Amino acid sequence: EIAAFIEDRHPTEAAEILSGLPEDDVNLVLEKLPLQTAADIFCELPGSLQSHIAAKLNKNDLAKLVINLSPDDRVDLLKSLPEEQFDSVLPVLAKREREDIKKLASYKEGTAGSIMTTDYIALPADITVREALDKIRLEGPAKESIYTIFVLDEGRHLVGSVRLADLILSHPSKKLRDIMDGQVVAVQAEADQEEATYKFSRYDLVALPVVDTNGNLVGIITHDDALDVIEQERTEDMERFMAISGKHEDTNYLQTSIWTHFSHRVVWLIILAILGLVSGAILQSFESTLMNLMILAFYMPMLADTGGNTGSQSATVVVRALALKEINPKDILKVIWKEAQVGLLLALVLGVLAFLRVYFTSSGASIPESMNIINIGLAIGIALGIQVLSATIIGALLPLIAAAFGLDPALVASPALTTIVDISGLFIYFSTARLLLGI
Amino acid sequence: EIAAFIEDRHPTEAAEILSGLPEDDVNLVLEKLPLQTAADIFCELPGSLQSHIAAKLNKNDLAKLVINLSPDDRVDLLKSLPEEQFDSVLPVLAKREREDIKKLASYKEGTAGSIMTTDYIALPADITVREALDKIRLEGPAKESIYTIFVLDEGRHLVGSVRLADLILSHPSKKLRDIMDGQVVAVQAEADQEEATYKFSRYDLVALPVVDTNGNLVGIITHDDALDVIEQERTEDMERFMAISGKHEDTNYLQTSIWTHFSHRVVWLIILAILGLVSGAILQSFESTLMNLMILAFYMPMLADTGGNTGSQSATVVVRALALKEINPKDILKVIWKEAQVGLLLALVLGVLAFLRVYFTSSGASIPESMNIINIGLAIGIALGIQVLSATIIGALLPLIAAAFGLDPALVASPALTTIVDISGLFIYFSTARLLLGI
Ligand SMILES: [Mg+2]
Ligand SMILES: [Mg+2]
Ligand SMILES: [Mg+2]
Ligand SMILES: [Mg+2]
Ligand SMILES: [Mg+2]
Ligand SMILES: [Mg+2]
Ligand SMILES: [Mg+2]
Ligand SMILES: [Mg+2]
Ligand SMILES: [Mg+2]
Ligand SMILES: [Mg+2]
Ligand SMILES: [Mg+2]
Ligand SMILES: [Mg+2]
Ligand SMILES: [Mg+2]
Repeated sequence: EIAAFIEDRHPTEAAEILSGLPEDDVNLVLEKLPLQTAADIFCELPGSLQSHIAAKLNKNDLAKLVINLSPDDRVDLLKSLPEEQFDSVLPVLAKREREDIKKLASYKEGTAGSIMTTDYIALPADITVREALDKIRLEGPAKESIYTIFVLDEGRHLVGSVRLADLILSHPSKKLRDIMDGQVVAVQAEADQEEATYKFSRYDLVALPVVDTNGNLVGIITHDDALDVIEQERTEDMERFMAISGKHEDTNYLQTSIWTHFSHRVVWLIILAILGLVSGAILQSFESTLMNLMILAFYMPMLADTGGNTGSQSATVVVRALALKEINPKDILKVIWKEAQVGLLLALVLGVLAFLRVYFTSSGASIPESMNIINIGLAIGIALGIQVLSATIIGALLPLIAAAFGLDPALVASPALTTIVDISGLFIYFSTARLLLGI
Repeated sequence: EIAAFIEDRHPTEAAEILSGLPEDDVNLVLEKLPLQTAADIFCELPGSLQSHIAAKLNKNDLAKLVINLSPDDRVDLLKSLPEEQFDSVLPVLAKREREDIKKLASYKEGTAGSIMTTDYIALPADITVREALDKIRLEGPAKESIYTIFVLDEGRHLVGSVRLADLILSHPSKKLRDIMDGQVVAVQAEADQEEATYKFSRYDLVALPVVDTNGNLVGIITHDDALDVIEQERTEDMERFMAISGKHEDTNYLQTSIWTHFSHRVVWLIILAILGLVSGAILQSFESTLMNLMILAFYMPMLADTGGNTGSQSATVVVRALALKEINPKDILKVIWKEAQVGLLLALVLGVLAFLRVYFTSSGASIPESMNIINIGLAIGIALGIQVLSATIIGALLPLIAAAFGLDPALVASPALTTIVDISGLFIYFSTARLLLGI
């Protein structure tokens, strides 16, 4: 019997095994398990499978499942259900749970409030360690995260925290106020979820308290959920970086439909195709130059690729430095100055390489009487150098400008940048050639 | 006095303030602080500043600092010092610390062993909860992570774990064996550090035990260090993705020298420039085709960019899915089939767009008598479609092949891919044009 086999597994592994079964069998297995075990496994299942199973439950079974989930997972599940079902299950729940769900569901996705849970221990500052331990023994078993106890003053303002370990190691008659860590690190409920994950990594936290605008404790974010958000934001960054749009939620590659994959990719491709009209127009305007000196066409891909690559490199470095808060948009001059120097070095190396390439590979090419291959090589090398320098600077500039306007810097990175740099590159290339070769 | 002001701050913030001071003043401030506070702040300073300060200490002061750092930070610091200094400080330390340092320093960077600490609590399975709590009260204050207690059998094999909370909530006379969680999640010391961070997120851990090949506990990885590794690997992935080489260690953008930035970027640029020779050669071999139909040159950038973009998109999606273990190299056929379908849809949309673009923007262009703009538009549209389809498939294929050979899939992504797709694109473009237009 698969249920017995599953029961002895870690919930994560049990969920993985179940995900491999036909969707309708999963519920049959879960029904055989103790309710708490079933709930633990359920919340590790992929979101789409969760909704599928929950949608088939009647309101009483759904309510039983819901109260066995932790408050944050509860709300995530209910939010994924059709509105009628959400509304039908609420009256079946106790008033306390109902209020809690409504409160948690009210925070906008992407905020710190939307990833918090209300399953924490908060105690008044002026009780003793002994009293605190008694309360924890009473409340504790239901609480998801009791590594840290949060300390409140009379007005429910968060004033400190005590690690469970410190409680055990302190004299039983001491007051919490005297042993607590009063350097409170907290996040506003309305803040971006990335602000919350940043604090986890900056202050090495296990749980981050979430406060409202009055400084009252309204929930906590646990380390495991912070980690999930970090992974999700990482996918979002990489996909945005590569011109993939969409919600970047927890979607599995193989389970996502062809149509969804397609629609997330096509948007930016069309925008970029339209932007690409400009490069065609520039080329048309230089048609006569190209006619005169066919050899220029051979090095167009080199110019475009090298510009795209150097621009992407500086954009990557700047986007990462912004994300790690090593720089902020006010450092724009420092960053540009640095990139200009790096770009100049790259321009020298790559310009010389381009000259050598033209010199050694174009001996057989047909060129007009009035020019020689050294002139042409010099012109192309210089054009490439200018292209590398400007692409490096543009690559650094765009994310900084996006950040200054409160946009995600990753949005203006690679493919958009490549297209922009292609356009500026063609212009640089033909202008330089005209100027230096007099055509 | 700045020392007094600093002392009341969170160590992370104190370290941030100190990093702003001239390097030589930092030590003056740290000397004024209690040793433990100074050590807590010290280990939050940037690595380069740590080494700078430590290098100026005599062996006794260095030893005093070292014993106040946690075992993992200790080893990271000592490893960053010149070998003479490392060797000179060891004899000053107690035997126990010396052995510990040697053991921790022996793991290769990038392994799970290299990010673990030896500051954990491990207890035998057959003591009672009361005895365990007494031991923790005795050993506890020095331990960095006492959220989880690890349970060993007689042979020091890891057999389970107990959350501190469960210890408090259990009856004092129960045996650890009876309350422990026996589903041990651990990582091998020699395993990749990414294997360790993957387990943190998969099993929602606060601390991950590290075992040797015999299953003996040799250390633990704490959640904060796992998070640091995740950030570091993320930077590495993004930089590799964008053809930036180097060690991707904790280096700050503004503090990194121009020369280092340059040298990390130039390597791949030169490799790609050499690879780019092929695209030049292909163009030269099609010189007569291009001469006959100049208009083909105008749409070369569109072909290259669109191919690069669609290829980068599929590469990104596949690299992420591999990193999240949603797919593995064995799924290659499933992935290619999926990408082929997505690519076909994209090819249709973008091919039609390309036809329209040629039709509406090339009315004034000079074309030979024997052709009309509809023929040319069709040829270009079809060539673009083939390019999009093949670029999508190549973009998915390269990371899968890299992963199958145990290479980092991110290495073969964006710029390398763009260059490859440029080459195949030119070939597709001119071959299609020749075939369909008979030139
Ligand atoms: Mg939520
Ligand atoms: Mg940290
Ligand atoms: Mg949770
Ligand atoms: Mg983001
Ligand atoms: Mg976001
Ligand atoms: Mg280390
Ligand atoms: Mg997790
Ligand atoms: Mg979880
Ligand atoms: Mg740290
Ligand atoms: Mg550590
Ligand atoms: Mg990696
Ligand atoms: Mg790595
Ligand atoms: Mg390109």
